[in-house]
Amino acid sequence: MHDISQYQDFFISYLNKQSINKEPKDLYEPIEYILGLGGKRMRPVLTLMAAEVFDADYKTALPAAMAVEVFHNFSLVHDDIMDDAPLRRGKETVHEKWNLNTGILSGDAMLILAYQYFEQYEPTIFRDLAKLFSKTALEVCEGQQWDVDFENRTNVTIPEYLKMIEYKTAVLVAAAMKMGAIVAKTSEQEADLIYDFGLNLGLAFQLQDDFLDAFGDPETFGKQVGGDIIENKKTYLYLKAIEFSSKERALQLQNLFGLQLDDNTAKIETAKAIFNESGASKATQEAIEMYTFKAFETLEKINISAEKKNILKTFGENLMGRKV
Amino acid sequence: MHDISQYQDFFISYLNKQSINKEPKDLYEPIEYILGLGGKRMRPVLTLMAAEVFDADYKTALPAAMAVEVFHNFSLVHDDIMDDAPLRRGKETVHEKWNLNTGILSGDAMLILAYQYFEQYEPTIFRDLAKLFSKTALEVCEGQQWDVDFENRTNVTIPEYLKMIEYKTAVLVAAAMKMGAIVAKTSEQEADLIYDFGLNLGLAFQLQDDFLDAFGDPETFGKQVGGDIIENKKTYLYLKAIEFSSKERALQLQNLFGLQLDDNTAKIETAKAIFNESGASKATQEAIEMYTFKAFETLEKINISAEKKNILKTFGENLMGRKV
Repeated sequence: MHDISQYQDFFISYLNKQSINKEPKDLYEPIEYILGLGGKRMRPVLTLMAAEVFDADYKTALPAAMAVEVFHNFSLVHDDIMDDAPLRRGKETVHEKWNLNTGILSGDAMLILAYQYFEQYEPTIFRDLAKLFSKTALEVCEGQQWDVDFENRTNVTIPEYLKMIEYKTAVLVAAAMKMGAIVAKTSEQEADLIYDFGLNLGLAFQLQDDFLDAFGDPETFGKQVGGDIIENKKTYLYLKAIEFSSKERALQLQNLFGLQLDDNTAKIETAKAIFNESGASKATQEAIEMYTFKAFETLEKINISAEKKNILKTFGENLMGRKV
Repeated sequence: MHDISQYQDFFISYLNKQSINKEPKDLYEPIEYILGLGGKRMRPVLTLMAAEVFDADYKTALPAAMAVEVFHNFSLVHDDIMDDAPLRRGKETVHEKWNLNTGILSGDAMLILAYQYFEQYEPTIFRDLAKLFSKTALEVCEGQQWDVDFENRTNVTIPEYLKMIEYKTAVLVAAAMKMGAIVAKTSEQEADLIYDFGLNLGLAFQLQDDFLDAFGDPETFGKQVGGDIIENKKTYLYLKAIEFSSKERALQLQNLFGLQLDDNTAKIETAKAIFNESGASKATQEAIEMYTFKAFETLEKINISAEKKNILKTFGENLMGRKV
């Protein structure tokens, strides 16, 4: 096995070798653009790692890893339209740089391109990968729809929120790992265990993202700190704060999350104070630890060497170790 | 074999048995809505017919036919957003009835659902269907992009236009038929011939659609007669008229196709007069006959009974027989 930065390098070098920029230019240039914007390439790296955990050469998993990354970027392009987001990784979003129609159509093409990467595998592997991919992709759409629905609802429950982030974020992390297992032709049981590991890791990751969005270090957190508060997003932090607070305090928070302000400094400070005093911050950190623990527990059940378990555990710890 | 209206009934009864309306409602209701709007179901009928032409029971081709119809409707939902169309088959378009985000996301889900219908086949058939589907779907996206590009270009050539309608329309008709052949496990050679038959029929169909858009009977043509002229669409009729006309007359037509008017009566009459006097109408009708003839020529090469050839020929003649 290799270390994470090596898998990143392997993947990026494979990505750079793809000849994506074909005609018509306005369809394919945006695809090359969004795929070239960078990011940690966490999902494809997990596919390569999972393949090697189950004794396959990472090289055999490169097309599947590419499918996962292309799909992830498809979802970013369409989500950015829906969120009306001007920036992605500090650069213009596709629909901003080009236009709405290009954003829709290039995204559609990416979803199809992702499936085409599976064609490099033999029929049974192709079928297993494409089936898992379709199931996952549909769940991601459902998660995105729940997320949109929740914006206009005031009665979102914690289980509903957890289901939403499971579908919108965690299932793709889980599927990325299971694809590595499928390529390595491991047993269904082991493949399902690595899926569970990825699912819990993905949940912990998203909850930590919620936490860092409010309490992260502006220097190291990639996005604008307080962004969720500005946009009135009902995250785990918010829902727990409503649950734990007195009626008055909960009402204050609800009213705060109905405001659209020019200067958000005071709003962010007030929201963070309520998150802390209500115990919501602590509860969120405990949930992160719980899901990370569940992931590591699942890892123990997988029939692989202690060394390999350690590599996956280190990956999880690094992921969770993004400093506050 | 059965007749066309029977295949339509078989397909609609299968479609009605699908349980599409799941949660979240705002994702799945629009899918049920657009699939329920009707239409001739030409593409899925061709899949069922092709399966029986090659000696399979039409029932085995129903999931593939469904995939084709779901994909076709996906492309309608996203195209209607791009064209800002308020109506589809006389009813509100999805993004009008719901909103832009729902249109994008429900469309995405339909593209994935289409792939899922192939999961009902064994691995090698699944792979052949999904491969053909991905190639076709990507070509449809490319065709749509060319169509968008052509709106802002004044130098579109006839070969470019033919390539655009081939990708945007004809390849899906062709693929619908080849899928029936794949399900029937016929030889690659026969499958490719039926693909060619469908491709030429699709081209003839689209050119006839262009012709009827200007010269069709308002009573029987499903869309607004003159719609392409109102929207300044550079169809085959327009491009041929430019090619055949004197410099002055061509300039007049170009200027006419730069206008956005409230009352389009005179514009439509003038454009139609130029289409006729330039010989563009005649050239378009000749092109329709030529592609129909090419389709029937290909049909002769397929190794099936004369009776079956006749059924396919009748289908083609009926399709082309939409009266002016």
